[in-house]
Amino acid sequence: MVLAQQDGTPEQQPAQEEAPDQAEVTPAEVTPAEIAPGYATDEDLRQAAQDLFDVILPAAPPTDEVHAAQRDLGAMLFFDPRMSSSGLFSCQSCHNVGMGGVDALPTSVGHGWQKGPRNAPTVYNALFNGAQFWDGRAADLAEQAMGPVQAAVEMNNTPDQVVTTLESMKEYLDAFGEAFPDEAEPVSFANFATAIAEFEETLVTPGAGFDRWLTGDDAAMSDEQKRGLALFMDSGCAGCHNGVNFGGHDYYPFGVVERPGAEVLPEGDRGRFAVTETASDDYVFRAAPLRNVAITAPYFHSGAVWSLPEAVDIMANAQLGTELAEADIGAIVAFLHSLTGEQPRVEHPVLPARTEATPLPNPFDDIMEQSR
Amino acid sequence: MVLAQQDGTPEQQPAQEEAPDQAEVTPAEVTPAEIAPGYATDEDLRQAAQDLFDVILPAAPPTDEVHAAQRDLGAMLFFDPRMSSSGLFSCQSCHNVGMGGVDALPTSVGHGWQKGPRNAPTVYNALFNGAQFWDGRAADLAEQAMGPVQAAVEMNNTPDQVVTTLESMKEYLDAFGEAFPDEAEPVSFANFATAIAEFEETLVTPGAGFDRWLTGDDAAMSDEQKRGLALFMDSGCAGCHNGVNFGGHDYYPFGVVERPGAEVLPEGDRGRFAVTETASDDYVFRAAPLRNVAITAPYFHSGAVWSLPEAVDIMANAQLGTELAEADIGAIVAFLHSLTGEQPRVEHPVLPARTEATPLPNPFDDIMEQSR
Repeated sequence: MVLAQQDGTPEQQPAQEEAPDQAEVTPAEVTPAEIAPGYATDEDLRQAAQDLFDVILPAAPPTDEVHAAQRDLGAMLFFDPRMSSSGLFSCQSCHNVGMGGVDALPTSVGHGWQKGPRNAPTVYNALFNGAQFWDGRAADLAEQAMGPVQAAVEMNNTPDQVVTTLESMKEYLDAFGEAFPDEAEPVSFANFATAIAEFEETLVTPGAGFDRWLTGDDAAMSDEQKRGLALFMDSGCAGCHNGVNFGGHDYYPFGVVERPGAEVLPEGDRGRFAVTETASDDYVFRAAPLRNVAITAPYFHSGAVWSLPEAVDIMANAQLGTELAEADIGAIVAFLHSLTGEQPRVEHPVLPARTEATPLPNPFDDIMEQSR
Repeated sequence: MVLAQQDGTPEQQPAQEEAPDQAEVTPAEVTPAEIAPGYATDEDLRQAAQDLFDVILPAAPPTDEVHAAQRDLGAMLFFDPRMSSSGLFSCQSCHNVGMGGVDALPTSVGHGWQKGPRNAPTVYNALFNGAQFWDGRAADLAEQAMGPVQAAVEMNNTPDQVVTTLESMKEYLDAFGEAFPDEAEPVSFANFATAIAEFEETLVTPGAGFDRWLTGDDAAMSDEQKRGLALFMDSGCAGCHNGVNFGGHDYYPFGVVERPGAEVLPEGDRGRFAVTETASDDYVFRAAPLRNVAITAPYFHSGAVWSLPEAVDIMANAQLGTELAEADIGAIVAFLHSLTGEQPRVEHPVLPARTEATPLPNPFDDIMEQSR
């Protein structure tokens, strides 16, 4: 459950990422005539940015007791490794609330130490994405939540087993009853997913330097960050990476101009083509949302790139056909650091104790069968 | 970090385990002449119990800023999966603060999906144990913390790699500086272990039904639980399972009277013999601490038994040479439920973002080498 302040809104705490150097944030040093090339003042730059981007607001308090109960239940489910067949993996395993909502691995480790096919996207601000997964194959957070729990390469469980597990513990029966009070059978796989989605909707990161600047605080971004923002808009990055999440909405081929090498864009993963089976969707992916990008390495669906400057360089080449100067890459990276928001403060839920009716975890048996 | 109340003591919340049925806790039903066989009143039973056991007190607030800093740092380290070579495992993986301080697996899953040799003991109240691990091979929590991080079958890391990882992130450098202010090189593997131990010392579970009863609340245990307590003391269980942790201090052969079968006591694991290389330590283990035992299945160093009544039955046979009646086992199990305390409320720490100097996680490469 997210810690609530007295007014019922979740508390946030600063990301443990270096803040922009205060020494840099000295408006006095700025030439009043030009805050960034093409923008005479902060206000000019801000107006251009306001046309493209939105700020993240703190998560609203739950609208009623039922939604509050759904959030609390969702937190329990998000953290409960018994939702996996092995008993080892929970949502938290790959979407760590202490690490920007990711696992900081190129691709995740799943059931039986299998290597996942794509980099785990952050759960933070995921509700602002137009659809979920790198290929947008899930319409919303609840649909997304049903995926990894069933994937053989991830949590390797079944909806029936999840429901049996949940029904075996009185505290879960009670929590589902409170969260879905008007339903004859409140414990269901669909409600499992709904509750997780309700919890995930609290996982937002307001208060980023960019957001504070966009709402009027000139000192919340450094000069270099402002120059980076101008470059980000004028070079074309913002053509795909826009909106509240700086991406997460529309679909584009990876390699609009020049396809990157197989290490970054493995040939076997044709992206959205697998969802739509349409030739024009070959190697098409959802534009990655860039909120908290500075604390969610590695990058791309392949997770092949650890360096943010390198990722920017690859994007400029592949998508814009542009070779950016090192100083310009540096400015864009500085700007991207301004998208790191306050990280949610999440209390680890106390989970129900198993009962005799709870299915046993099974980390090894099926693995041994496979290797026979 | 543990949530602090206004007086600086950690907050606790009730374990999500069924409380003793209030209907059972009706002193009026008790025959005033005999609260349990051999004990005329609660006070008689209490005096006998006070000679053998102690209550758990809430964790004391940190004595000074340095210790507070050590606790906060320890929480970060406890939850940081980058302390493992794969980037997947942290202390929390096997000592889940939401599940009674255990992973609820027979034996843990470790690096490369290896199967651990013994059941992961609970981290809760571990500071009250005389020594750590099933064979007591670590003298204290700090020494224990150094083990799993280096074990090839667990986190598979090295002290050097841990220190390099920690030194790569400014927030860790700062946190170690605050936690160990008088040291020339605050970031060290020894201080890593010390900080984790300081955090773990806050992980205690006061307020159990037994503790409330022992300090005078007659209604805090049911009649059956009181009868179970009397049996626990008079049958001999308390001969080994005593003190504040109901065990965790002394060493005994598993099978004092009759050695259990190989499924429960695998022949390959000779217990404390491996530590002392003394014949009399063959198949000797530390008496398991029984605090929160009802929520920390499965049982024994092998984790082979999921049922608490079955575990009690095995113990009575193996250690006491007694065949307990089913009703007596039931009473002892009811009593053991009274050892479930309030579970600590732990906020998931926000962890530092990696830098270019942070060693990359390596979940697959060495595994692939091994399988070649």
